[in-house]
Amino acid sequence: MTSYREAGVDLDGADRHVANISSVVTSTWAAEVIGGFGGFAAGVEIPEGYRRPVLMMSIDGVGTKLELARRAGRWDGVGMDVVAMCVDDLAALGARPIGFVDYLAVGALDEERDLAIVASIAAACLQAGCPLLGGETAEHPGVMAPDAVDLAGAVMGVVENGEELGPGRVSQGDLLVGLRSPNLRSNGFSLIRSLFADSLDEHLESFLEPSVIYSPSVQRAVSTGAVHSAAHITGGGIIGNIPRSLPAHLGATIDTSAWAVPPVFESVAAMGMPREEMFRTFNMGIGFCLVVDPEGLDEVLEATAEHEPGVIGVVTAGGGLDIR
Amino acid sequence: MTSYREAGVDLDGADRHVANISSVVTSTWAAEVIGGFGGFAAGVEIPEGYRRPVLMMSIDGVGTKLELARRAGRWDGVGMDVVAMCVDDLAALGARPIGFVDYLAVGALDEERDLAIVASIAAACLQAGCPLLGGETAEHPGVMAPDAVDLAGAVMGVVENGEELGPGRVSQGDLLVGLRSPNLRSNGFSLIRSLFADSLDEHLESFLEPSVIYSPSVQRAVSTGAVHSAAHITGGGIIGNIPRSLPAHLGATIDTSAWAVPPVFESVAAMGMPREEMFRTFNMGIGFCLVVDPEGLDEVLEATAEHEPGVIGVVTAGGGLDIR
Repeated sequence: MTSYREAGVDLDGADRHVANISSVVTSTWAAEVIGGFGGFAAGVEIPEGYRRPVLMMSIDGVGTKLELARRAGRWDGVGMDVVAMCVDDLAALGARPIGFVDYLAVGALDEERDLAIVASIAAACLQAGCPLLGGETAEHPGVMAPDAVDLAGAVMGVVENGEELGPGRVSQGDLLVGLRSPNLRSNGFSLIRSLFADSLDEHLESFLEPSVIYSPSVQRAVSTGAVHSAAHITGGGIIGNIPRSLPAHLGATIDTSAWAVPPVFESVAAMGMPREEMFRTFNMGIGFCLVVDPEGLDEVLEATAEHEPGVIGVVTAGGGLDIR
Repeated sequence: MTSYREAGVDLDGADRHVANISSVVTSTWAAEVIGGFGGFAAGVEIPEGYRRPVLMMSIDGVGTKLELARRAGRWDGVGMDVVAMCVDDLAALGARPIGFVDYLAVGALDEERDLAIVASIAAACLQAGCPLLGGETAEHPGVMAPDAVDLAGAVMGVVENGEELGPGRVSQGDLLVGLRSPNLRSNGFSLIRSLFADSLDEHLESFLEPSVIYSPSVQRAVSTGAVHSAAHITGGGIIGNIPRSLPAHLGATIDTSAWAVPPVFESVAAMGMPREEMFRTFNMGIGFCLVVDPEGLDEVLEATAEHEPGVIGVVTAGGGLDIR
């Protein structure tokens, strides 16, 4: 007879994990959450004020940034990464997050690490103003190495029908407002790991800095009515993502002297990565970009003040990005 | 200079993957889907008829059943597994799925395999009556083996406030209606792989049979008004899941002679696994259990006819399960 434990599945550990995370998860629940922890699912009502709510979802993972977290034994930031990747994709559409769920896959449970990861997700959900409604922790013995970890999550959000941000609302002369990112977000890490194969440990702490969560600031900016479109700068970098916020017939000029590229990007460039490749891969210090009506600029700058916003460019006639 | 390709990330392959899956994904979209494929997210409106909609989410993965799929090179069923795990958790609360997103993590992209996986998810979403709103395909070079695959997904669903199924609605004398599962679902596979370490290949096809999706039938049953509570029989088996549908002060008697245990479970038991362990791990032929008002039994049986429903037990005074 093979027991579950001999098969590498730790049922007692799974029960302990659920007990450990219970209060952490429910700490993110405000009055709007319906249904108890431990049921098959928990729910929320749509916040008041929506006449024709459109529900949206986004799903994303932390990617191989987790390999750096594993090397450093540092799990307190990975929740920021997974929550930021999801809620800020919704923020790019003007949607407000109303529920988050996480998927944690491990080779073997590790009580301390797994609690730290879920606590980190819960802290990020609180920062994003979004309840952590549930999650799945899966043990994959024999498929993943015992100390291997993968982390993904999904968010649902709501936006008023007809008020979605998007390329269709953008006009020539709109301004690009960049929100600062002092560090890498959660993309480009396979390249980072390859570039720094021989010196990764020296840079672990700076590379592991968690992603900024822009969603609450972006929602404040959107509520001014002056935001037309937006881009979350993740995989594909500035060059890959800003065009997704513009219609095909318009382009943008971006003035890179408008902000200081943070040191972490200079250290990556110093490994010999060309400047254009950098802008095609990383956020380069701008983690989120709002496309803004010039008349509402001051209000948008005020709403996003915590992220040191600044005008980094302007929407131009003709397609394409001109990065100067 | 290290290129992305040298780092194991296949950007061209990723573009091809997105192009390949585009029509497959949008084939699941009915008129209610808002926003285009390739944007940051897509949305849906809440179906008509809800006065106070409660939104719910569930997230789950296929687990190490994927290792069997990899051995068999057979990917056409894994979408049924991931969609079933998610939408049937919501069905246990009486919620209707309105949007699904998938998370596919691979060591290296494989054009044919990855398209087959997404096509399988899309087919399952169509069967569940739920649009595939988006997804993430992540390459994890150097962390996952090149041919390794992990698959998870998340669903959002809606239920009328106050009409959620649950233990609070159950009375002594309610009947347990079992919906048949001819095979394993998507749990217990680490144990299966351990039990059949020397003979897995002989059983691959039967073990890989995809999970049944109960959600549409369950919704029809719920609309009769006679369903009080429900249990999705996954990890923990019948013994672990049926009590989640009952209040603490009530129990149930289950008559195992009411259905024939499918052959696949007999082949697992034949490896020396005790009967109680089997009922604590697998669905044993009952993949979903409805707790039903006796007066509405006929309607519920009719609504779920495609899953060969049958009364398998009754709710009793006093806590605990009595499995005979």
